[in-house]
Amino acid sequence: MIELTKEYIEHLREVIELKDETAAVNMLQELYPADIAELFQELDLEEAIYLYMLMDGEKAADVLMELDEEDRRKLLKELPSELIAKRFIDFMETDDAVDLMRELDEDTQEEILSHIEDVEQAGDIVDLLKYDEDTAGGLMGTEMIVVNENWSMPKCLEEMRSQAEEMDEIYYVYVVDDDERLRGVLPLKKMITSPSVSKIKHVMKKDPIAVKDSDSIEEVAQTIEKYDLVALPVIDSIGRLVGRITIDDVMDEVREQHERDYQLASGISQDVETSDNVILQTAARLPWLLIGMIGGLGNSVLLGGFESSFAANPKMALFIPLIGGTGGNVGIQSSAIVVQGLANNSLKQGNVWKQIVKESAVSLINASIISLVVFIYNFFMLNNRAITASVSLSLFAVVMFASIFGTLVPMTLDRFKIDPALATGPFISITNDIIGMMIYMFITAALS
Amino acid sequence: MIELTKEYIEHLREVIELKDETAAVNMLQELYPADIAELFQELDLEEAIYLYMLMDGEKAADVLMELDEEDRRKLLKELPSELIAKRFIDFMETDDAVDLMRELDEDTQEEILSHIEDVEQAGDIVDLLKYDEDTAGGLMGTEMIVVNENWSMPKCLEEMRSQAEEMDEIYYVYVVDDDERLRGVLPLKKMITSPSVSKIKHVMKKDPIAVKDSDSIEEVAQTIEKYDLVALPVIDSIGRLVGRITIDDVMDEVREQHERDYQLASGISQDVETSDNVILQTAARLPWLLIGMIGGLGNSVLLGGFESSFAANPKMALFIPLIGGTGGNVGIQSSAIVVQGLANNSLKQGNVWKQIVKESAVSLINASIISLVVFIYNFFMLNNRAITASVSLSLFAVVMFASIFGTLVPMTLDRFKIDPALATGPFISITNDIIGMMIYMFITAALS
Repeated sequence: MIELTKEYIEHLREVIELKDETAAVNMLQELYPADIAELFQELDLEEAIYLYMLMDGEKAADVLMELDEEDRRKLLKELPSELIAKRFIDFMETDDAVDLMRELDEDTQEEILSHIEDVEQAGDIVDLLKYDEDTAGGLMGTEMIVVNENWSMPKCLEEMRSQAEEMDEIYYVYVVDDDERLRGVLPLKKMITSPSVSKIKHVMKKDPIAVKDSDSIEEVAQTIEKYDLVALPVIDSIGRLVGRITIDDVMDEVREQHERDYQLASGISQDVETSDNVILQTAARLPWLLIGMIGGLGNSVLLGGFESSFAANPKMALFIPLIGGTGGNVGIQSSAIVVQGLANNSLKQGNVWKQIVKESAVSLINASIISLVVFIYNFFMLNNRAITASVSLSLFAVVMFASIFGTLVPMTLDRFKIDPALATGPFISITNDIIGMMIYMFITAALS
Repeated sequence: MIELTKEYIEHLREVIELKDETAAVNMLQELYPADIAELFQELDLEEAIYLYMLMDGEKAADVLMELDEEDRRKLLKELPSELIAKRFIDFMETDDAVDLMRELDEDTQEEILSHIEDVEQAGDIVDLLKYDEDTAGGLMGTEMIVVNENWSMPKCLEEMRSQAEEMDEIYYVYVVDDDERLRGVLPLKKMITSPSVSKIKHVMKKDPIAVKDSDSIEEVAQTIEKYDLVALPVIDSIGRLVGRITIDDVMDEVREQHERDYQLASGISQDVETSDNVILQTAARLPWLLIGMIGGLGNSVLLGGFESSFAANPKMALFIPLIGGTGGNVGIQSSAIVVQGLANNSLKQGNVWKQIVKESAVSLINASIISLVVFIYNFFMLNNRAITASVSLSLFAVVMFASIFGTLVPMTLDRFKIDPALATGPFISITNDIIGMMIYMFITAALS
């Protein structure tokens, strides 16, 4: 493996400037596509295009798919549709080709399709584009080795050799019946270790794990992880084999899902990277800050109703951060536990009440400890019986409310098929801040 | 695939009660290990042990490794070491065996090792147990197909057949020289599509992607994802092939890492599941709530120093939630962006200043917009010039401070090799709450 040091990059730029094709080709040969994509971040567009023209088709296609979406868009804008079709799409597996096409507008898509030489590939791409992006059908490709259950092993091996030519990697051989329905799977290992003359159907593993083309990406990820597979066959509603999903694509999806959940919990409303520009970052972050601001102003109106109490008893103001903060912290914990439980399937929709009872028990302990400690502290330090009592009572009520609210809201969203992760982070802390202040003000008013 | 409905489970329990071995074996045969592990959650320990005894060795071992750590511990406690060795470990790949051993105490480990029949396997397990759990060495197994670069293809195929017998799945064949140093890799596809009489070294892919045994799990995950591999060879410090890591284990590690980050950002200090009991959940959640409580009490002391100002000007109290909440929201956003950037390698340690400059630009826009909107609102609604000015000035200062602080702290932790995710969630919101109040009080005091 070659390290992309500054010196290495400098040397490559010199080679490009001198148009030393042989040296450039040699350097490219030593690098993996993912490394070349990383390297391209350091080069200008023109230098990158020069290198593209020196790569063989498959490598150029791989490098293109390893680029950031943003960089890929910039590059494709510079290239005519015919070149995109012949230089890239022709060398891609259909799942990558479809990913690429989805990034382009419809006119460009049609132009590119008209230039693809392999009619079968073009047809597959058109079919795949019809699937919803968030389903198994939208993630799958059609490159796979398919054999008939009635074939013999030797016939099967022969067929595999001819089919495998166009494929990057093979991990399983899928077995279908005469109606193209998926019947079994053969791990590649079996093909090597058990050459035999018997029919495939006697050697294959029956009832293979598969997903339906309409299944969601979450279901795909759960299935491939649960059964420790590296590829998953996809069937249509009547059981015919229509494609396969590979684990690298699933891993990308799982990572994106995690990042999305993490960002939602952190009050970031669009997918942003540290490398995105200032405008993009602001656009992703301002919405929740404005909602928080409105919440804060709402709170000022609420507290304004008790202005005379603050004048009479200014000590009341000192505990606003404690009560608001505690409510926020408790609510975020509760909602995070629910969101994570729903995501990894350990929490089932039917168990709403069970979860709320358990959450209430946990909160009862936490609420008792916190309000007791604060009570003792204030009893000795504050010298104000009424506020000492109302602060601890309010804390208790806020912790109980925040935990139940933080459990209930994501579970309700999930029931209505809305992403429960929306109810984490700032949403929960802002809501709990307002309700916490209400509880505090009303308990204080009631006690005085 | 069979669905584990209530009726199905009822039926299975009846079969177990009647001790109908044939029926039980038939039912088990239809299920995958991951399904049986799921099923075991619904059965008592005795019923589960009955079923274990009916499964063949490999399946029993797979089911055991699919169980929750907690359930596995309960089961193993009931079984003698000899049975654990002969019934489970003997049928496991070494990476799973090592995972299992790490869950047991040293005495049990030694007892089990003494009962393993395959001396080579026992030796490999002892060697693997020496590696740190968080390194590539701690994650790898030794089951892989290894061939010598000087062998011919037919000799290679023959060798593969004998080696493959003991393995679950094979995806790559690794090629070594006479000193056992890793020289190349052969995708399994090549073995099928290019049978030839030439030496392996002319067919293999040279300079294969590999990790060192001392590399961290994060490096392993980044490498396997970057190069879209399904298994990764592991070499020692002088380049000898010592093991391989499979993608299913990497995926599990990645998922755990994500869950840990998410929990840290949500103020949960231990790994908890919705299914954990009330005491475990309380223990995971109380620490941050107590820290938040101490922060809140600290804030009450700070604000107490300005008690007379609140008495003179009670309107000051109304904006405490706005300023505290905004500081918290901004800080959480900033730290989340840094933590995520560091985790997916898009943010490099050297770029601290670049990131802070960019962060400041984003914050300048956000701070200006928020403080301006609040200024306009208060100007017309509040009827108090001094507080209108001090609230907006404080908001501006708090947003700027919180964003730089939220960027700097995780980057500093990362530099000192401490998990930057510690500096997210409650840590950031509590710190920002206190500093926000300081800024607010001092600006207000300065303006009055």
